[in-house]
Amino acid sequence: MKKLINGPDAVVADSLAGFAAAHPELRVDRRNRIVYRATPKGPGKVGLLSGGGSGHEPLHSGYVGPGMLDAAVVGEVFTSPTPDQVLEATKNVDVGAGVLHIVKNYTGDVMNFDMASELVAAEAGVRVESVVVNDDVAVQDSLYTAGRRGVGTTVLLEKIVGAAAEEGRDLASVAALARRVNESGRSLGVALTSCTVPAAGRPTFELPEDELEIGIGIHGEPGRRREKVAPASDIARLLVEPILADLDFGGAPVIAMLNGMGGSPLSELYLMYGEVAALLEASGVRVARRIVGDYITSLDMAGCSLTLLRADDEMLTLWDAPVATPGLRWGA
Amino acid sequence: MKKLINGPDAVVADSLAGFAAAHPELRVDRRNRIVYRATPKGPGKVGLLSGGGSGHEPLHSGYVGPGMLDAAVVGEVFTSPTPDQVLEATKNVDVGAGVLHIVKNYTGDVMNFDMASELVAAEAGVRVESVVVNDDVAVQDSLYTAGRRGVGTTVLLEKIVGAAAEEGRDLASVAALARRVNESGRSLGVALTSCTVPAAGRPTFELPEDELEIGIGIHGEPGRRREKVAPASDIARLLVEPILADLDFGGAPVIAMLNGMGGSPLSELYLMYGEVAALLEASGVRVARRIVGDYITSLDMAGCSLTLLRADDEMLTLWDAPVATPGLRWGA
Repeated sequence: MKKLINGPDAVVADSLAGFAAAHPELRVDRRNRIVYRATPKGPGKVGLLSGGGSGHEPLHSGYVGPGMLDAAVVGEVFTSPTPDQVLEATKNVDVGAGVLHIVKNYTGDVMNFDMASELVAAEAGVRVESVVVNDDVAVQDSLYTAGRRGVGTTVLLEKIVGAAAEEGRDLASVAALARRVNESGRSLGVALTSCTVPAAGRPTFELPEDELEIGIGIHGEPGRRREKVAPASDIARLLVEPILADLDFGGAPVIAMLNGMGGSPLSELYLMYGEVAALLEASGVRVARRIVGDYITSLDMAGCSLTLLRADDEMLTLWDAPVATPGLRWGA
Repeated sequence: MKKLINGPDAVVADSLAGFAAAHPELRVDRRNRIVYRATPKGPGKVGLLSGGGSGHEPLHSGYVGPGMLDAAVVGEVFTSPTPDQVLEATKNVDVGAGVLHIVKNYTGDVMNFDMASELVAAEAGVRVESVVVNDDVAVQDSLYTAGRRGVGTTVLLEKIVGAAAEEGRDLASVAALARRVNESGRSLGVALTSCTVPAAGRPTFELPEDELEIGIGIHGEPGRRREKVAPASDIARLLVEPILADLDFGGAPVIAMLNGMGGSPLSELYLMYGEVAALLEASGVRVARRIVGDYITSLDMAGCSLTLLRADDEMLTLWDAPVATPGLRWGA
């Protein structure tokens, strides 16, 4: 295992220290491992909180800032943050209008965010709603998940719902929008290599030099099946077809994300996006907005994932609203 | 070799097609392999043109847009674009105030940009100035270079000089600023793995599982020396010390870039930045601005590079000016 780290035990603390040094425009509580905006939102606005295991950067700490999250809670590598961390962050981002928890559907995350919600309601009287993202069409139930796993739609949801919270919508509306975005998003990933968890020191799984795995999870959970290495045009088909089979994307503006898993260069991600875009056009799917890059990763895994969101005019307007975070930035 | 490609011969064309699909806000001439802004600069402003071999994305095509380049010329993987491509692009970005060529110091690039400058002056009467970036402190002369190689300072230069050109400064001033930025920037890189050029199909060099290479080039050119794999804090020292020994960075605001080579995840880059920032602080170097991410890459190479720019107030103001490109974006 060759990595730019000091040692497996220090990975999360050291990376967060570097993140803090790189982003003086954010406030990092290194003891509790929580990333906050430097300037809290105005009173009366819903707080948005997400978080999860480390190893998926820029998710979630890279999406804290104006137009997206108010805070992100950072767990150990591929490990849920604790209820205490979520409790602390929830109390701090509440400015009186309540807090929305954005949780990816992994058993540990769901349990710990739930526990924190109960604690914060009892202890501090903070109203909390939760949305659980479960957009991965790969498999029903997985290594750490009952139901579908939560992946790329999380990024799009944090952007869209972040803009809605910025407008001052109330907790019920923000939560309802978040659920609607989740229901409208679908993802599927492919791995060319395994990731290597620092504490394990060796690849999470073995993938022969002539094979790829469709439907891989962001923690290296098994996918649908393995295939012989294929041209990008074939790989694109293996990603697009199951997504289009799972939800009707016709007649609506679609937001597309071609996401890298951490170890694939940008040139390959663009190449894959070209193949995906051609297939979508041939299928009559109208891509209205698109992003290409590393947005939700799996350490050093080579590969990519595709997320499609069946949007509407409201979602597009919220998507286009200004955002200023380390991981997504545009507008004013 | 596992890559998200259709075949080695189609890599550049296919990736550019995907780039075009992903960035409708830019204009891509796929035949000549040139990326332009969709809306040219106003008359009387100097055109900024760069380019080079593919495989370093987002450099250079990702830096086309308001506040940075007017166009980027795209060569084959690790291969200079042709004089004809540079000629075509130069003619198109000239709006009467002349064109600055930003060229990384590799023999092929320097020769082909020079040839294009002569052709365009003779054929179309366009005034051209060139700046050759040679900021890599690793080695004097290299596999494809007489003198020092040109690497990370190119990114910072394109941003700073892009802002100056946007202000309407004349060609001589823009070129002088570009040379001053180049003289003020220093870089050094480290590889944990080789890159794999698609056409070759195997790693460019062999690096044992317990070694890293200091001073690696962005085409996999040999560096200064190999070391046993070390903690990030030691690697940071191996990058920082030769840079500080090469130029006095004291008493000036410094712009720092911790850049990924393509195959290292963002979490490791942040971690490395934390180590670098601590060393710089201990050395009395004042980092005024910093960026962390993949900005000038070497295909799928794991590793990183550090660039430090000894800036001044003028450069900082230009750095902070708005920019809206796929690879760098902030401000209005």
